[in-house]
Amino acid sequence: MQLRVAMAQVDTRVGDLEGNCELVVRWTARAAQENAHLVVFPEMTLTGYPPEDLVLRESFARASERSLVELAATLADQGLGGIAVVVGYLAHTEGSGPAPVDRTPTDDDRPGDANPRRGAPRNAAALLFGGEVVVRYYKRHLPNYGVFDEARYFVPGTELPVVRLHGIDVALTVCEDLWVEGGPCGVAGQAGVDLVVSPNASPYERAKDDLRLPLVRRRAAEAGATVLYCNQVGGQDELVFDGDSMAVAADGTLLARSPQFVEHLATVDLDLDPSSVPERREGRIGPMTVTRHVVSEEPVAAFDRRPATVVDPLSDCEEVWRALVLGLRDFIDKNGMPSVVLGMSGGIDSALVAALATDALGADRVHGVGLPSKWSSEHSLSDAEDSARRLGMHYSVVPIAPMVDAYEASVELSGVAAENLQARVRGTLLMGLSNQHGHLLLATSNKSEVAVGYSTLYGDAAGGFAPIKDVPKTLVWDLARWRNAYARDRGETEPIPQNSIDKPPSAELAPGQQDSDSLPSYEVLDAVIADYVDRDLGMAELLERGHDPEVVARVLRLIDTAEFKRRQSAPGTKISLKAFGRDRRLPVTNRWRETLPTVREGAQS
Amino acid sequence: MQLRVAMAQVDTRVGDLEGNCELVVRWTARAAQENAHLVVFPEMTLTGYPPEDLVLRESFARASERSLVELAATLADQGLGGIAVVVGYLAHTEGSGPAPVDRTPTDDDRPGDANPRRGAPRNAAALLFGGEVVVRYYKRHLPNYGVFDEARYFVPGTELPVVRLHGIDVALTVCEDLWVEGGPCGVAGQAGVDLVVSPNASPYERAKDDLRLPLVRRRAAEAGATVLYCNQVGGQDELVFDGDSMAVAADGTLLARSPQFVEHLATVDLDLDPSSVPERREGRIGPMTVTRHVVSEEPVAAFDRRPATVVDPLSDCEEVWRALVLGLRDFIDKNGMPSVVLGMSGGIDSALVAALATDALGADRVHGVGLPSKWSSEHSLSDAEDSARRLGMHYSVVPIAPMVDAYEASVELSGVAAENLQARVRGTLLMGLSNQHGHLLLATSNKSEVAVGYSTLYGDAAGGFAPIKDVPKTLVWDLARWRNAYARDRGETEPIPQNSIDKPPSAELAPGQQDSDSLPSYEVLDAVIADYVDRDLGMAELLERGHDPEVVARVLRLIDTAEFKRRQSAPGTKISLKAFGRDRRLPVTNRWRETLPTVREGAQS
Repeated sequence: MQLRVAMAQVDTRVGDLEGNCELVVRWTARAAQENAHLVVFPEMTLTGYPPEDLVLRESFARASERSLVELAATLADQGLGGIAVVVGYLAHTEGSGPAPVDRTPTDDDRPGDANPRRGAPRNAAALLFGGEVVVRYYKRHLPNYGVFDEARYFVPGTELPVVRLHGIDVALTVCEDLWVEGGPCGVAGQAGVDLVVSPNASPYERAKDDLRLPLVRRRAAEAGATVLYCNQVGGQDELVFDGDSMAVAADGTLLARSPQFVEHLATVDLDLDPSSVPERREGRIGPMTVTRHVVSEEPVAAFDRRPATVVDPLSDCEEVWRALVLGLRDFIDKNGMPSVVLGMSGGIDSALVAALATDALGADRVHGVGLPSKWSSEHSLSDAEDSARRLGMHYSVVPIAPMVDAYEASVELSGVAAENLQARVRGTLLMGLSNQHGHLLLATSNKSEVAVGYSTLYGDAAGGFAPIKDVPKTLVWDLARWRNAYARDRGETEPIPQNSIDKPPSAELAPGQQDSDSLPSYEVLDAVIADYVDRDLGMAELLERGHDPEVVARVLRLIDTAEFKRRQSAPGTKISLKAFGRDRRLPVTNRWRETLPTVREGAQS
Repeated sequence: MQLRVAMAQVDTRVGDLEGNCELVVRWTARAAQENAHLVVFPEMTLTGYPPEDLVLRESFARASERSLVELAATLADQGLGGIAVVVGYLAHTEGSGPAPVDRTPTDDDRPGDANPRRGAPRNAAALLFGGEVVVRYYKRHLPNYGVFDEARYFVPGTELPVVRLHGIDVALTVCEDLWVEGGPCGVAGQAGVDLVVSPNASPYERAKDDLRLPLVRRRAAEAGATVLYCNQVGGQDELVFDGDSMAVAADGTLLARSPQFVEHLATVDLDLDPSSVPERREGRIGPMTVTRHVVSEEPVAAFDRRPATVVDPLSDCEEVWRALVLGLRDFIDKNGMPSVVLGMSGGIDSALVAALATDALGADRVHGVGLPSKWSSEHSLSDAEDSARRLGMHYSVVPIAPMVDAYEASVELSGVAAENLQARVRGTLLMGLSNQHGHLLLATSNKSEVAVGYSTLYGDAAGGFAPIKDVPKTLVWDLARWRNAYARDRGETEPIPQNSIDKPPSAELAPGQQDSDSLPSYEVLDAVIADYVDRDLGMAELLERGHDPEVVARVLRLIDTAEFKRRQSAPGTKISLKAFGRDRRLPVTNRWRETLPTVREGAQS
């Protein structure tokens, strides 16, 4: 039995119900042009993901419900009522159902800050057809770890609706449901279905596709059905979503895979055999109740099968590069900023951020400023200029000596205070240009610096967005080399000066200063950061893995005490297991030190 | 049957297992001097609360388990083994139990950011006696709303241990368990107990005691037993805990209440009648399993009953003042900062922060700096000086014109860019002094400013702590008047110049500028903020409540677009229903506007 299905991996905007509905109409029209019978959109299509505490705002939740109903009508008005459309949205019910045990106590004497989830908000998906909302599915498994906080927002669902569409039984699930063995896919398998749709908002992380494909294969086997995995694409504050949508048959065959980091409509021609499903049940199955609904029993007319596209995953560096470009572009564009400004030191970090910004926004929206001090080397200015010239971006120079001198004539500042002063004069100049011309200031801090606090608060850490905040310094170099090679392969100018890549890193805040005066080599430092921050290993495990005890002691102390600075720093695109920000939530006031004995020696048991 | 019980509301330090254990030994020794038989400490005594993602660090969780066992031994070593001690801690079990349904999917193909709660961490309380850990209780109800994220961290408990101590049956619970009707207190009531102990970490909020006492009364009635409610005291980043510990009899009699905002040991002499408990059961009761344990059947020797102290709650202004003083003091001291610096404008905000800092730290640790510009009025300098003189704090003056002139000679800045420049020159000077002398910079922003973004990023918003970040401007004035009256009543110098209270507020960043040029009156503004931010009301409800539509449209636009600035601002003590920060988590990139139509007009259903 044939069906042409489509996955529309679109770039939604959080909070923009109207714009996101228009997006659905536009992409459904494209799917209709392709003669698709069913099109699946990502998780929470109408609200964007993650909407965070917007979910708790009743006026927003009600508007989401209204726009779902209106979207169904609009689709029909536009002649698109004959295609089944699965969209994600925020559900809100006036009469809140019973709260789940252990999560939402419902005493009437709760304090003012008690759980404000009025209207039992749910992370929902709906199937629209013929101008109507045919069924609504409520996400069952709510992730509440890493960057996810869904236990704060949503009530879990207990029903699994199955819709017969042109004689094919389609089960609805949402995102995390797919990561759970014996979850809704298992229930669908016991109920008997032909197809499972899975709208997702699964944030990018390096090499995540290596996890996703085997996962979708296991769920397809469990459901005994083809799985359509449609993932969101685009940047949203610290998160970037990579798309990577795919269709996998019950036997594990990868039928289609979409490219990463671009909006895309993938169509797949299915030819399913309903007789292979041994039985079809409804009612209580395991922890869920299966309901069955019919849109149409009639199979679609036979059509010529077209091959679907299976895109290969990108290489590691290209994947990270595209993630950073998209995260930056969407932050700037979705916040309505016309252009960006950044300080150019001639060093590798600002050269890389300038290249990213140019790839993301076009050279004409990127403004670089050289801000030399009396400690700046000659090459710092010439490399900065070279960088700007290669990229074709705007570039100007403002020496900082007059301002630094004015401060030093008024107050006595020495040592680190004098070093920081220079960075803050630069920050103040850049913010002045930002305010005067409407540019957003980009901070050029990398993850290694952010980890150990090797930056000046309100100085080089100033900025509205920090594109490489989650990129360790060693990867900064790798990305620069990769981007230059990519340009060479295409006969284009290498965007990053070789000298910026080759020279030893220096903050140039004091005569002859180099990063290696204050920090271990970046190879050593990044390895400790990966184990302590990303993998959360303790002191004993760090030593077991062969790290030098003195280096570990020094680096951990730096990381532990920099929380304070990180709390006040700009968002930046997450690419790693554990980025500073939404992922890693530590108190500023925190006495725990891996490197100190925490219990009296004599009292060891 | 008699028992002398004690509640030790202590000020713990997050992450300081060793220091917190010493605190328990010290206060247990005090309880022993008072001949108490049982002493109860606050929730998560050993780790401090909230430890946030420290919970997910296995090395920390293991250290918490170790320090509990060592604490029991140390108490006995110090001759305190004969007093029963209830402490909170972070429990960690090597063999993680089954994960609760709907919260921790346990597929083996989870992504790297999957729930890292190895070892089934639990928010636990233990009863120590005779050098041993007698029983461990695992918190059942995990709050996951407002400032709480316990579903991220903990696995809920299902056992209710009851310990017979000198013939009296004591049930253990933790914090949120008390807020749930039919929760562990209900189970205790069905099981039959004489006493319920409740270690708490319940953050301060204005007039919270009005909720707590009736709540504890209902739970005491439900348990048919006396309840000992012991709450943490002290500041931890944005949160401040007020103590307010209490003992309430089964019939609702308030037996004792401790003062707010100070460490305190309250003793209460109980005379309980075990025969009034109709039956004593164990095993499965409702959703929990009740276990019974015996420390001693023998009643204590008869002793003379002493009256307990019932402290009245503080007045609204005094309560807020003490919350702000303690929140500030603990942030500074727990982070090991020797002193603070702040800019003094002669206005009410900096005058109030200076008075708070002086109350919190003593005048010798407070450094004020007057930073006049060419737009500063004469009274701004004289009022700032008057303020510093009244408080006896350090004070100096640095005119900012030379620095401002140096910038303006290098780049052209006009309008808001020129206004912000002055604020950033001040921020840079203050941070220079902070770095040079080791002072922590205090930001003086109030909640009204923070709400609408009426501040300069890296300028007046710069600082490591913002003591009045959650205090609306109208309350700033009320607090100033209250603090002066408090001084007058005691024959002391009024700490705040009357002129700073009386004059119209101005940022003085342009000639003749007043706040009222840019904002509605603070009475009007604060009322909108209370409804939109604290109560989360939507547009329709705001208009229903009589707010002016134009004012609402303007203020909401300002609030919605200032998220960006707030993300990069310092922590400050929470005193309201909903403070900016941990309480209210909105995306920076967010298109939702209450004031715009979000669905097409014609498509309304």
